[in-house]
Amino acid sequence: MTNQDRATWNAQMKQRAAETLRAARAHPARPAAVQLGAQELAAMIDHTILKADATSAAVRQVCAEAKEFGFASVCVNSANVALCVEALRGSNVPVCSVVGFPLGASLTAVKAFEARQAIEAGATEIDMVINIGALKDGDYALVKEDIAGVVDACHQQGAICKVIIETAYLTDEEKVAACLLIVEAGADYCKTSTGLASAGATIEDVALMRAVVGPDTGVKAAGGIRSYDDAVAMVAAGASRIGASASVKIVQGAPADQGER
Amino acid sequence: MTNQDRATWNAQMKQRAAETLRAARAHPARPAAVQLGAQELAAMIDHTILKADATSAAVRQVCAEAKEFGFASVCVNSANVALCVEALRGSNVPVCSVVGFPLGASLTAVKAFEARQAIEAGATEIDMVINIGALKDGDYALVKEDIAGVVDACHQQGAICKVIIETAYLTDEEKVAACLLIVEAGADYCKTSTGLASAGATIEDVALMRAVVGPDTGVKAAGGIRSYDDAVAMVAAGASRIGASASVKIVQGAPADQGER
Repeated sequence: MTNQDRATWNAQMKQRAAETLRAARAHPARPAAVQLGAQELAAMIDHTILKADATSAAVRQVCAEAKEFGFASVCVNSANVALCVEALRGSNVPVCSVVGFPLGASLTAVKAFEARQAIEAGATEIDMVINIGALKDGDYALVKEDIAGVVDACHQQGAICKVIIETAYLTDEEKVAACLLIVEAGADYCKTSTGLASAGATIEDVALMRAVVGPDTGVKAAGGIRSYDDAVAMVAAGASRIGASASVKIVQGAPADQGER
Repeated sequence: MTNQDRATWNAQMKQRAAETLRAARAHPARPAAVQLGAQELAAMIDHTILKADATSAAVRQVCAEAKEFGFASVCVNSANVALCVEALRGSNVPVCSVVGFPLGASLTAVKAFEARQAIEAGATEIDMVINIGALKDGDYALVKEDIAGVVDACHQQGAICKVIIETAYLTDEEKVAACLLIVEAGADYCKTSTGLASAGATIEDVALMRAVVGPDTGVKAAGGIRSYDDAVAMVAAGASRIGASASVKIVQGAPADQGER
């Protein structure tokens, strides 16, 4: 794109985001009535350990819990992917690696390289962070290219890509624009938060994101989800995946009769 | 190295760290009496903007301040290096890029790739974060290889490399081990903190790090340094570089007579 085309594209995207936000506000989704057993809920949770000082033993513990409870994946930093692959051998639990995490302010080529390296090490899911500064600048073309660079790297190697927009830093219009760009870039999920910003997932944001991306793109709620009720409320609002470190406590909070199913 | 050699090397390094820590405690350094004018101090400060949601305008503002006050560098995320190079054109202010920031838990190949990409974009200084989990595991060989991978990438392209140990998460013995590994890996500076952990630089840590690395490796104090007095206390304790976002306020706090020099 020329600079002129780019400016036009960015302006059109801004207008589309504003219109989409108006439509979403005019027709608010009603939370679904959701009942989830422990196993059903576990199968939606990316069991997560991303602390800078996480030891091998702590990562192995998370892997053991994922096998025991049947979580959707184990989500780790890229340096820990190989360890998880080894620890999860013989199970069906996939490994998810974060990329450009948590600031999202690394170069696109670096994010794509990290995705490829993590996939080579055995990850089959990638959670990347968008370039938040570029979104704030209104440079939607750059945000989309950055997402697409990682999505393409993932899809070329058969991995799925979730895209973190870090809602804590965004206006509603920016959240909508980010979700539209995620769909345009062909990503598999939009995701609320890294869990390392000033706030995590909210029911309102999950509902808004679901309204924008429609039924064919996943919505992952992450950050601050610490109980069964928290998790179920996110699913009721439209989340199809949950990111949490308190995953064991979450599923153990399922009502006993539900847990039996 | 075989696994056996590696285990032996790690055990020797642990012992060396313990002995070095004992020696440092037995012979505590006395803070030097330091007087610094505004210009001298400015020339020691990496003027820093690393927030995930930093806009282009905010980054340009930091660059303008660095030119005006003569800061040592502008320190940014890798996605912002090219913008800084453009904004700083015609000045002597170098661009510093962080790498593997702030968790330090990305793969070594990814950190080295990010360093090379940032240097290609025009950075001449790289601030990397160590693999903190590996340090906690006592896998000193891995920590050293991780540092050396980035240091070598930097030195091959004429850039300097500073190495963040994130003191907030470390015991004193771990801090010492990290500094010994930094010297072994040939890095140019050890650095206390990312500024994004639960605590930043302390006078005690800076003094300990200086005692361990000796006079030929730099010590960068970063995280929570917000006033002239804070900065001067770090220099008195042994810091040769300061990382700060409140850099303008810091140098404007210099005593007027010092500021005139």
